[in-house]
Amino acid sequence: MVRVSWCEGLRFEAEDQHGHKIIVDTEKEFGGSDMGFRPLQLFLVGLAGCMGMDIVGILQKKGGKISSFVIEASGVRAENHPHKYTKITLMFKCEGVYKREDLLRSFELSRDKYCSAVATLSSKPELEFII
Amino acid sequence: MVRVSWCEGLRFEAEDQHGHKIIVDTEKEFGGSDMGFRPLQLFLVGLAGCMGMDIVGILQKKGGKISSFVIEASGVRAENHPHKYTKITLMFKCEGVYKREDLLRSFELSRDKYCSAVATLSSKPELEFII
Repeated sequence: MVRVSWCEGLRFEAEDQHGHKIIVDTEKEFGGSDMGFRPLQLFLVGLAGCMGMDIVGILQKKGGKISSFVIEASGVRAENHPHKYTKITLMFKCEGVYKREDLLRSFELSRDKYCSAVATLSSKPELEFII
Repeated sequence: MVRVSWCEGLRFEAEDQHGHKIIVDTEKEFGGSDMGFRPLQLFLVGLAGCMGMDIVGILQKKGGKISSFVIEASGVRAENHPHKYTKITLMFKCEGVYKREDLLRSFELSRDKYCSAVATLSSKPELEFII
């Protein structure tokens, strides 16, 4: 469970069950104060983080020595409201000493078997609202 | 675009184009260091933040005076890999001086018209991977 609390303007603070906190905010021109990530971009971070953990963990178990692992994530948004992401692109850059086939296999295992974020985005979870 | 970079263990640091940073991490028993949000929970924060901004913004434009606005977001995960969210529940708690019908209308406008996160989760965006 996470708790997302309004601060002021359009700025919110999110807190998880372990006490970690994140500021979510938007552009000043829209009434925000630009003090944190935009909400929709957290989908990109969640997806990249989830796959990144899978891939790094699996590749290391296969004996890979990783010196750098970076994911650049971007989304294409629909022109009209509600401006949903129609496409999300993740570009992976892995440096270190490892076999290319092991990296690809780690990626495939994440995409096809282990990544909760990929599976969630690919399955239209039920949304329930209590207000 | 966001950049998500591996730090150590299973900890990653995300940075957006404005320089905001978030730590993403996992449980120590899974190889993490518990220094930040779990990746999948960022979907909850993104969804709650996106709807929260809509609702607070619209309700205020309708003349509502909000003193507190909190969203509790939780997800039900599938028992088997990849443990995707099968259901996400958002519970809204709004305090202040406003008309109940205005709060409900603000919520409906977010859910049905404006919220990019609701629309993204409801539409299976295309996922592209470059590795």
